[in-house]
Amino acid sequence: MEHVKQLAIIGTGLLGASVGLGLKQAGVCCRIVGIGRSQATLDRAAAVGSIDAGSTDLAQTIRDSQLVIIAVPLSGFESVFRELAPCQHDELVITDVGSTKVSVQAAADRWLANPAMFVGSHPMAGSEQQGPDAADGNLFQGKPCILTPLPTTDPRALRTAEALWTTLGMSLLQMTPEQHDQQVAVTSHLPHAAAVLLIQTAAALGGWDVASTGFRDTTRLAASNPPMRADIMLANREALTKALGEYRDQLDQLTALLEAGDAAAIVKLLEAAKATRADWLTQANL
Amino acid sequence: MEHVKQLAIIGTGLLGASVGLGLKQAGVCCRIVGIGRSQATLDRAAAVGSIDAGSTDLAQTIRDSQLVIIAVPLSGFESVFRELAPCQHDELVITDVGSTKVSVQAAADRWLANPAMFVGSHPMAGSEQQGPDAADGNLFQGKPCILTPLPTTDPRALRTAEALWTTLGMSLLQMTPEQHDQQVAVTSHLPHAAAVLLIQTAAALGGWDVASTGFRDTTRLAASNPPMRADIMLANREALTKALGEYRDQLDQLTALLEAGDAAAIVKLLEAAKATRADWLTQANL
Repeated sequence: MEHVKQLAIIGTGLLGASVGLGLKQAGVCCRIVGIGRSQATLDRAAAVGSIDAGSTDLAQTIRDSQLVIIAVPLSGFESVFRELAPCQHDELVITDVGSTKVSVQAAADRWLANPAMFVGSHPMAGSEQQGPDAADGNLFQGKPCILTPLPTTDPRALRTAEALWTTLGMSLLQMTPEQHDQQVAVTSHLPHAAAVLLIQTAAALGGWDVASTGFRDTTRLAASNPPMRADIMLANREALTKALGEYRDQLDQLTALLEAGDAAAIVKLLEAAKATRADWLTQANL
Repeated sequence: MEHVKQLAIIGTGLLGASVGLGLKQAGVCCRIVGIGRSQATLDRAAAVGSIDAGSTDLAQTIRDSQLVIIAVPLSGFESVFRELAPCQHDELVITDVGSTKVSVQAAADRWLANPAMFVGSHPMAGSEQQGPDAADGNLFQGKPCILTPLPTTDPRALRTAEALWTTLGMSLLQMTPEQHDQQVAVTSHLPHAAAVLLIQTAAALGGWDVASTGFRDTTRLAASNPPMRADIMLANREALTKALGEYRDQLDQLTALLEAGDAAAIVKLLEAAKATRADWLTQANL
């Protein structure tokens, strides 16, 4: 990242501010400028030390930067790329922190004159908290970051994005935007939906008096930020609908086993699920 | 519990041994005898200090006891009540730790000459671990215990069971066996099923490379003991099937909102779920 003299972060909420703070803590000496519409948010991001300066002038800041990280909600990407397009210059690498990648790549392709300088990133770290005051320079440490370069992506863009996330302590994975969205639909967006549906089922049928830690943990994801989550669900609508369909099929199979009173088949199913989860946890670095 | 000179625990696995250990730690001075088929398990329960002695002679031990706690898997209750029936005497209070209550009460009513001396208990505490070596005298401390007396239950039985669980630090709740089973179906058995279905969906569709802490926590219950969980599911089949049906309806509603691209309705749904969960957690003592 030596060629990066100035780095811009569009959106200094929890993730954007944590990127800035983490880079500062890692001793990266480029100037970090936060870009946003809200002066108050920029001031808070500066106050916690995550940016050197805040600016509401996107065009000027981008012209002076060699790397820009888009850290806005998914519903804001279209307008950010549209604003970025006229300021794109040859030295500018563009990446992001969006939780889905197909729609982000499509927006980059639609608006940018040179989409080859954009490489999609999904740093898999987060928190139920929001805003720059919750920024944490260690948020990304030891977590995976998925990069979704295309065959047409400029190798300079890929190398710069890789250097960025590695500096923040992340381990890197590469896949296509489509693979990314299908995978997160199953193991991130579906579990969130499942948690919400459990709460709604209890709201309909009751059971609160006896709800304990198992219910609390299984529904933890339902505490996530609703507009952000709705954005993600809709941005990944196709893959999530497919995952919900498979989940529903699994549910119907279990219901049929229960109705048949098939104890042996139920034990076999529970043993398979337990073993599959244990195998994953053995390999996963969580 | 002063009238209890000897207390018998049928089944000295994790729960049974933890009851014994907790009573010892609370300074209860009655003699505690573990009853089981496996001498090795009884020896381990004695070695960890949860029982004073182990016995494979149920009839003799019960005749000398004033309180018996049944802590066997749900599928074992019929045979335990059948064995207990001929040794039941006027001073004997019978309770249990079963995770469902309708089937346990039905077995008590079917086999016992005097079912009025049985009061169903569900101490809501557990662990993914098994066996007497995992026994924990503090397992029950601060957790809820649900008692399911009937109008016909002998007040002495209820008072003794209340004293038992209070001594172990539990807070008491009363409801009917039917209310109990409906409530745990929604907030205990359904979340377990949901966790298993999430694992099975990932097994079918993939997503492991990007699975992180959210997936781990949402699926934690899938690590529970398969035969024990299958027992519970089948013992509570009717209420669980109803809960799975409501869950499926909620799933279909969310899928329809996604397919319609109704962002406002999805945000509203997620906000309702988040608020409902937060309200519960504010009141719950977890």
